[in-house]
Amino acid sequence: MMHRLDEVATALSARLEGDGSLKIGGAAEPATAGAQDLALAMSPKFAEGLSQGQARAAILWEGADWRALGLEAALFVPRPRYALAGVTAMLDPGPEIPAGVHSTAVIDPSAQIGANASIGPFCVIGRDVRIGANARIAAHCSIGSEARIGDDVLLHAGTRIGARVAIGDRFIAQPSAVIGADGLSFVTPETSAVEQARATLGDTGDAKGQAWTRIHSLGAVVIGDDVELGANACVDSGTIRPTRIADGCKIDNLVHIAHNVELGEHCLLAALVGIAGSTRVGNRCVFGGQVGVSDNIFVGDDVIASGGTKVLSNVPAGRVLMGYPAVKMDTHVEIYKALRRLPRLLGEVRALQKAVSKPGASD
Amino acid sequence: MMHRLDEVATALSARLEGDGSLKIGGAAEPATAGAQDLALAMSPKFAEGLSQGQARAAILWEGADWRALGLEAALFVPRPRYALAGVTAMLDPGPEIPAGVHSTAVIDPSAQIGANASIGPFCVIGRDVRIGANARIAAHCSIGSEARIGDDVLLHAGTRIGARVAIGDRFIAQPSAVIGADGLSFVTPETSAVEQARATLGDTGDAKGQAWTRIHSLGAVVIGDDVELGANACVDSGTIRPTRIADGCKIDNLVHIAHNVELGEHCLLAALVGIAGSTRVGNRCVFGGQVGVSDNIFVGDDVIASGGTKVLSNVPAGRVLMGYPAVKMDTHVEIYKALRRLPRLLGEVRALQKAVSKPGASD
Amino acid sequence: MMHRLDEVATALSARLEGDGSLKIGGAAEPATAGAQDLALAMSPKFAEGLSQGQARAAILWEGADWRALGLEAALFVPRPRYALAGVTAMLDPGPEIPAGVHSTAVIDPSAQIGANASIGPFCVIGRDVRIGANARIAAHCSIGSEARIGDDVLLHAGTRIGARVAIGDRFIAQPSAVIGADGLSFVTPETSAVEQARATLGDTGDAKGQAWTRIHSLGAVVIGDDVELGANACVDSGTIRPTRIADGCKIDNLVHIAHNVELGEHCLLAALVGIAGSTRVGNRCVFGGQVGVSDNIFVGDDVIASGGTKVLSNVPAGRVLMGYPAVKMDTHVEIYKALRRLPRLLGEVRALQKAVSKPGASD
Repeated sequence: MMHRLDEVATALSARLEGDGSLKIGGAAEPATAGAQDLALAMSPKFAEGLSQGQARAAILWEGADWRALGLEAALFVPRPRYALAGVTAMLDPGPEIPAGVHSTAVIDPSAQIGANASIGPFCVIGRDVRIGANARIAAHCSIGSEARIGDDVLLHAGTRIGARVAIGDRFIAQPSAVIGADGLSFVTPETSAVEQARATLGDTGDAKGQAWTRIHSLGAVVIGDDVELGANACVDSGTIRPTRIADGCKIDNLVHIAHNVELGEHCLLAALVGIAGSTRVGNRCVFGGQVGVSDNIFVGDDVIASGGTKVLSNVPAGRVLMGYPAVKMDTHVEIYKALRRLPRLLGEVRALQKAVSKPGASD
Repeated sequence: MMHRLDEVATALSARLEGDGSLKIGGAAEPATAGAQDLALAMSPKFAEGLSQGQARAAILWEGADWRALGLEAALFVPRPRYALAGVTAMLDPGPEIPAGVHSTAVIDPSAQIGANASIGPFCVIGRDVRIGANARIAAHCSIGSEARIGDDVLLHAGTRIGARVAIGDRFIAQPSAVIGADGLSFVTPETSAVEQARATLGDTGDAKGQAWTRIHSLGAVVIGDDVELGANACVDSGTIRPTRIADGCKIDNLVHIAHNVELGEHCLLAALVGIAGSTRVGNRCVFGGQVGVSDNIFVGDDVIASGGTKVLSNVPAGRVLMGYPAVKMDTHVEIYKALRRLPRLLGEVRALQKAVSKPGASD
Repeated sequence: MMHRLDEVATALSARLEGDGSLKIGGAAEPATAGAQDLALAMSPKFAEGLSQGQARAAILWEGADWRALGLEAALFVPRPRYALAGVTAMLDPGPEIPAGVHSTAVIDPSAQIGANASIGPFCVIGRDVRIGANARIAAHCSIGSEARIGDDVLLHAGTRIGARVAIGDRFIAQPSAVIGADGLSFVTPETSAVEQARATLGDTGDAKGQAWTRIHSLGAVVIGDDVELGANACVDSGTIRPTRIADGCKIDNLVHIAHNVELGEHCLLAALVGIAGSTRVGNRCVFGGQVGVSDNIFVGDDVIASGGTKVLSNVPAGRVLMGYPAVKMDTHVEIYKALRRLPRLLGEVRALQKAVSKPGASD
């Protein structure tokens, strides 16, 4: 689909200079852009690329001379990365899921499917499921009994939604995401070695290993509006109350959200993050890749944890964390610098000991 | 399904006080309990919640006065968390997989399906597969040729079982678990840089990177009885001998068990754990989330590793571990406390050096 | 299928001693080998196992006396692990995917399927897809519109390939691998707290959390020849340009490759590795399990990172890394040894301080 450049400018709230009647059909890096691509050249380092590619129009850095760069038109935006959101949204053709319900889909007669829904081949939709309007559900998805899903959702291929899960509007699930699996919740008849070790910080005492008895997950999952869940990511059902993910959370591939977790609004979790059972996370938290958060703790609002951080205890609001165990980022940097000097320090202390034990020798 | 409270009491070996003829249909936290829910109020902190909710019966902490709390009946149990297993098992309606084999399932004529099995839509079951009695197999599962699966198993949607995998009774697979994928096992024609680096602890010498040649996985997987595997978890096939998971292991979402690993009985592995190739893990080990265990090592019985621990070498039985590299938990705590003081220590040593080099100055 | 031992010898470039007409049908560890198995006894520690098993032929360590070990024939190879690749390739029956296109597969009429392709039950293949010759595509795979896949590929059950993804020849995808999901790419209208924290190493200043706006992934994925991708592994689509994986890369289960990443030739990535957005990794890198690599950095050729390493900044070619943050392996070993002595060091410095402050007392 082609867009006039002046329409793109309006959509992005961008300043247009030059020929607004140009039509663009895609976006590209400057050096590889074709004649119908809008080149994305938001900093001066892309100037050379523009001369290599064939773009006639570009989004440029403030102050750039588009004529001198050989362009016929240019857009200028105050926050280039934000403009990228608008450009890519305009140009994304989206997944091709034919309108209507595919003849192979197995849908329980009691399920209520909203207006204008597209449901792909081999989907399985259970008893008393309710799905909102304009749903786009790709092939091979399964939705368990009594699940509720809002309007305008997009489920990519192989999404698994368990029984009694409730999801808001505009939810996006990447392929093979799993919502509502049973939590890992087991108990031994007597106090277990691991309970003992946690209570004593390492002493398992007389506790003996025992077989595990299953605690079933009755609580399902409640997800708000505008949530996105990555490929192969997992959100487990709660035990008694639901696991909760609030509005606006964006969750990456292979993330694990355990049973009973409560995640606040607008959190951003990068790939391979794990949040253990019953932990509560505040609003607007951002966790880098492979961050781990212990069970049964509380993380305040606006906490940022850089990639690989392991959060082992409660965190007050606003903290920026790093390390294993997690500490404030500046503390981590200070400790780490000292650590690099530690091997030399050992030698220095030896020298001091020698000097002090033989006071005369150092004179 | 409704249960009489006196029947619940018997099932849980709980002490009943009050009206045993009350009927309950669910379990809930005290504040949100409805009139037919059994409130779970196992410690005094839930007292206030009871007054907010509508429960007529509850499981209470020892010594609680159920009449004063406005209840008509109460259960008392010696180990509340263990009672939770019984309560949730009674109240779990389980997944709805209609009895019999769905008409869309593609089942090889040579496959033997046990009595009373339920097989969902779009399942694919290969040549000479044998499945025990009472199997519940949800939609979209695939089972490779010659696989053997025991009685009373539950495979959630999208479970993938490879050829020649053997699994015991009462196995539960959460959605999209994969058993019997090929292991990551590759070799170069000449000694590779990584082999060289491991032998020398960091020196790659003259070794050159080369293309990788595949070692095929012929060994499949053998899983015992009463094992549970989480959503999107993976257990790879062994190279020559099978990868083995013994009875009673409970494995969480997104866990990776590599080729040739042997996991002892009743191990509990939390989400995102990775156990590398050919490593043997003893009985009753408990690994927290994101624990990693190196390849070709041995971990003894009853080892506990807290979340995020990286186990890089053999571990004797009974150890409680923490850290990267893993050390005994109390050692880790001691090192970590010292580490927090390290930046100050550097300054103190500088001061000492000054004092010692100019003895007169400190007097 | 049975193989004559002299044929196996030729295939492996092995030296044969004894009866080359023996037929073998499998490979096994010495102690459990049957009469038709080739025992794999590549070091003297397997000698005892040979006497317990029933093998008539074995691959032996150089210098072994096969007659004394009770064998009728033996193979000797210069690099046993490399021979294992050849043996297992000969003996692997491969997955059973019946020839031709299964009647239940849903294939868009515009898709071009190469000669001699096998496509399993319930596959869904989109508009204008092109698949090369001899493809083996197991059950439940989905391939998005305009995707291109080379010759001789093997897609195990449940593989998900997104729109416009391009993949070379001899690609292998283990079950439920996902190629071409949307990247986790979001932006706030104003500077976000996390941008602020990265710029200042920890100070979020006045930045306020805001709702996330989606940047769509238009760039798809380009994968070279001879690449293998593990079970439940994920390779996300690029934003504008494609995410790239070069020839010969072998990627394990549950690995995450984020949007815009470029991975060089012949890299080997073990399970649960995460590589964050826009990072470039050179040729022939080897990353152990759970390694993490930050976004927007550059890792040179031939870098090796041991399991659990977190790479937070650019790495020159040839480095062998360990730790969080990653440092050279020998530096890590040195720091770690010093760290073990740190608690004692604190006491020693206290003693020194005491001695220095009271010079007379230590005499």
